[in-house]
Amino acid sequence: MDLAQARARDAADPLASIRDRFQLPDGIIYLDGNSLGPLPRATAPALEDLTHRQWGERLIRSWNEGWIDAPQRLGAKLAPLLGARADEVIVGDSTSANLFKLLVAALRVHPARTTILSESGNFPTDLHIAEGAAGCVTGGRLRAVPRAEVTAALDPDTAVLLLTHVHYKTAERWDMAALTAAAHEAGALVLWDLSHSVGAVPLDLTGCGADLAVGCGYKYLNGGPGAPAFLYVAERWQERLANPLSGWMGHAEPFGFADAYAPAPGMKRWLTGTPSILAMAAFEAGLDLWTGIEPAAVWAKSAALFDILAAAGDRLGLDCITPRDPILRGSHISFRHPHAYALSQALIAQGLIGDFRAPDILRLGLAPLYLTHEDVWRAGELLAGVVRQEPWTDPRFSERHLVT
Amino acid sequence: MDLAQARARDAADPLASIRDRFQLPDGIIYLDGNSLGPLPRATAPALEDLTHRQWGERLIRSWNEGWIDAPQRLGAKLAPLLGARADEVIVGDSTSANLFKLLVAALRVHPARTTILSESGNFPTDLHIAEGAAGCVTGGRLRAVPRAEVTAALDPDTAVLLLTHVHYKTAERWDMAALTAAAHEAGALVLWDLSHSVGAVPLDLTGCGADLAVGCGYKYLNGGPGAPAFLYVAERWQERLANPLSGWMGHAEPFGFADAYAPAPGMKRWLTGTPSILAMAAFEAGLDLWTGIEPAAVWAKSAALFDILAAAGDRLGLDCITPRDPILRGSHISFRHPHAYALSQALIAQGLIGDFRAPDILRLGLAPLYLTHEDVWRAGELLAGVVRQEPWTDPRFSERHLVT
Repeated sequence: MDLAQARARDAADPLASIRDRFQLPDGIIYLDGNSLGPLPRATAPALEDLTHRQWGERLIRSWNEGWIDAPQRLGAKLAPLLGARADEVIVGDSTSANLFKLLVAALRVHPARTTILSESGNFPTDLHIAEGAAGCVTGGRLRAVPRAEVTAALDPDTAVLLLTHVHYKTAERWDMAALTAAAHEAGALVLWDLSHSVGAVPLDLTGCGADLAVGCGYKYLNGGPGAPAFLYVAERWQERLANPLSGWMGHAEPFGFADAYAPAPGMKRWLTGTPSILAMAAFEAGLDLWTGIEPAAVWAKSAALFDILAAAGDRLGLDCITPRDPILRGSHISFRHPHAYALSQALIAQGLIGDFRAPDILRLGLAPLYLTHEDVWRAGELLAGVVRQEPWTDPRFSERHLVT
Repeated sequence: MDLAQARARDAADPLASIRDRFQLPDGIIYLDGNSLGPLPRATAPALEDLTHRQWGERLIRSWNEGWIDAPQRLGAKLAPLLGARADEVIVGDSTSANLFKLLVAALRVHPARTTILSESGNFPTDLHIAEGAAGCVTGGRLRAVPRAEVTAALDPDTAVLLLTHVHYKTAERWDMAALTAAAHEAGALVLWDLSHSVGAVPLDLTGCGADLAVGCGYKYLNGGPGAPAFLYVAERWQERLANPLSGWMGHAEPFGFADAYAPAPGMKRWLTGTPSILAMAAFEAGLDLWTGIEPAAVWAKSAALFDILAAAGDRLGLDCITPRDPILRGSHISFRHPHAYALSQALIAQGLIGDFRAPDILRLGLAPLYLTHEDVWRAGELLAGVVRQEPWTDPRFSERHLVT
C-alpha cells in the first residue's frame, strides 16, 4: 500500500467522521489507545458541567439528580458493546477490585471446587488478584497453566476459568464461545476479562453463554485515565452470588442505615463504596460517543489497519507475534525485538506513540474510531526509519527511565 | 448572640479569608459539608489542566509525569492533617474497599484471634464490610456491641477494634488515645475510620499509637463527589500486613509483568487497581487548599459555630443528641425530631441545606473553612422559623422521595 491508496481507504471509510469526536494532539500518531484512549471532545464540557453546576451549584442535591444511578446508567449504555442486557452490567471500582469480587463469589458456588484456573502470562493483575481471592476462600488456589494447556486443565476441581479474552501482549484472542462451553462442560464458571476487547472486538456475552466478565474503561472506551471499570453477571447468576466487598452502595437500602448487610437485587449488589462521580462523568462521555457506531464496522477497520502495519513489519523482517488471522486476534499488533524499549522511545521522539511491554515487546494499538489509514501508513514509514537508525546504540533511547 | 455579635466574630476570625478559596452558590447556607464538601476554586482549573493538557495533549506520557505517584503524593499531603508521617498514608479506592483490605489483614495477624469488634450503629458500610471481611478469614466474625459496652467487650479473641472516631449521626467522638490503649492492652489492633473527623477535628494518629486508619476524601477535605479515600498503616505494621486486594498497582514492580505477586515496600502495597486520575486531581486541589491553615484554629471555630446553633436549638426546645463538651464531639450538630425529614426538606426550600439521617435525625454540618458565624446565626433563625411552620403537615415536605 502506498500513501495514495491509504488516502483512498480513508475517503471510503464509514467511520471517518468519528475522528472529529476526539481532541487529538497535532503532530502525534497515537497508537496507544489500547492503554489510554484519547480525550473525546464531549468530555471536557461534561466535566465542566459536573464541576461547576452539579457539584458547585447543586451540591449534595445532585445525588438525587443523577449521581446515585450513574453505575447502572453507564452499565446500560455499555451493555450493547458487550452483547449483554442492560441490567447485566454495572460500572464502578477498578478491574482489579471487580475481579476480586467475582472470583471470591465464584469460588463459593461449589465448595468442592477450589481452583481458579487461568493462563500463565495472563495480565499480571488478573493473576495477582486471583491469588488474593484464593486466599479468601477455604482451600482456594490459583492454577495458571500455559495457554495451550488451558482446556485440558479444566477438571472437577475447577471452580472458575479466568481468561483475558485478548492478550495484552500478543493480542491473541480466545474463542469465547468454545472456551465458555468447555468450562461449562467441566462444571466450572467462566470469567472473561474484556479489557483489551471492548470497543474494538465484537462481543456477544449472551450468545456465548458467558457467566461473568470484567473490563476497564480507559482503553478503547476512552473513559479517561484510571476510568471506572465494569462488571457483568449473567442474569441467572445475579441472585446466587454474593459480593465479598459488601459495602453500603450495594445494600438493598443504602440510606436505611441498618447494621446488617442485605444485598440489593440485581447488579446493584456488586457496588461497594461511593464511586467517583467525576470519573463516572468522564466515562459516560466516552460511552455516549458510541451512539450510532456499528461494532462490525469498527472491527472491519481494525483488520484493515492491522494489515498495513503487518506488511510494514514484514518488509522490515520484524518478528510479529500477533496472529495474522483476524478471528484469532484483538486490535493491536506486537513485535518481539531485543531492543523493543529503545525502539519505542525512538518512535516517541518521532511523534509515534506506542508502548513497550517488558521484556521485549513493541506494542502498537489500532483503535479504529480515530485512526486513519494514512496515520497507520505513516506509522509504518516511521517504524521503518527508526529500525534502520538502530536507536539501541543511542543512550537517549536505550536507558530505561520510565515507570510505564 | 445577635447578628451584630456574629458579625463581630467574623471580623475577628483568623480563618475568614479561607472562604474565598471556595465557589459557594448564592442564596444557600450550606450545612452539609460533612456529607459533600463544596467546590474549591482551584479544582476546576486543576481539572481543566488535567483534561486538556495532561490527558488530551500528553496522553499516555502523563503516567511518567506525575500520575503514577499520585497516591503517595496525596497521602503525603494529607498526613499532617492526620498527625501521621508522610510515608504512612496513601490515597486510593473507596473507604469501604480500604476497610476491607485492612480488616482482612488485621484478622490474619494472630490466627487465634478471630473477632472484629465494633459498635452497633456504626456507619453501616463499616459493619457491612466487616461482615464481608470476616467471611474471608477462617473463623472470622464481626461482633458489634452498644457504644457503652465496647471497652468491656475487648477480649483475648479480639483481633481488631474497628471504630468510627466521630459518629455520623450523633457526632459523638471517641477518645482515640484511651481506646487505642485499651485495644492494645487487650492484645488487639485498632482501626479508626476518620471520615467524619479529618479536616475538622485535630488528629494525632502517631501520638495515640494508632495502628490503622481509613477515611473519606469528599467530606471536610472537599475532594469532590466520591473522591478517593485514604488509608493509614503505622510504620511498624507496614511490612507485617498483607493486602488481600493484591492488584498490580501494589506490586513491587507493576511494569515488570511477572505472574507472581510481590508486594511493594511501604504503603504502596495497599494499592490495588489503576486509580482514577481525574478523581485524584480534584482531591489534590482540595488538599492543597489546606496550606497554611492551622488545625487548632479550625477546631476552635467549629466549637464556636456549634454554640450558636446549640443555643438556637435550646430556644426551640429541640432534642440535641450531640455532646455539649467539645472534646466529646466532632463538627456537626444533630437534633432528634419525629419529623426530621420534613424539617430537612423545608429548610432546603428556605436555602438551608443540611441533611436527614433515618429515622429521625436532622443533621447540620459546621465546616469551619467556609462558614461564617453569620451564616450559622442565620441558620438558627431559619431553623426557628421552619420549626414553627410545622412543615410535617405539608405534603410537599413530608413525603419521602429522595434517595439520600
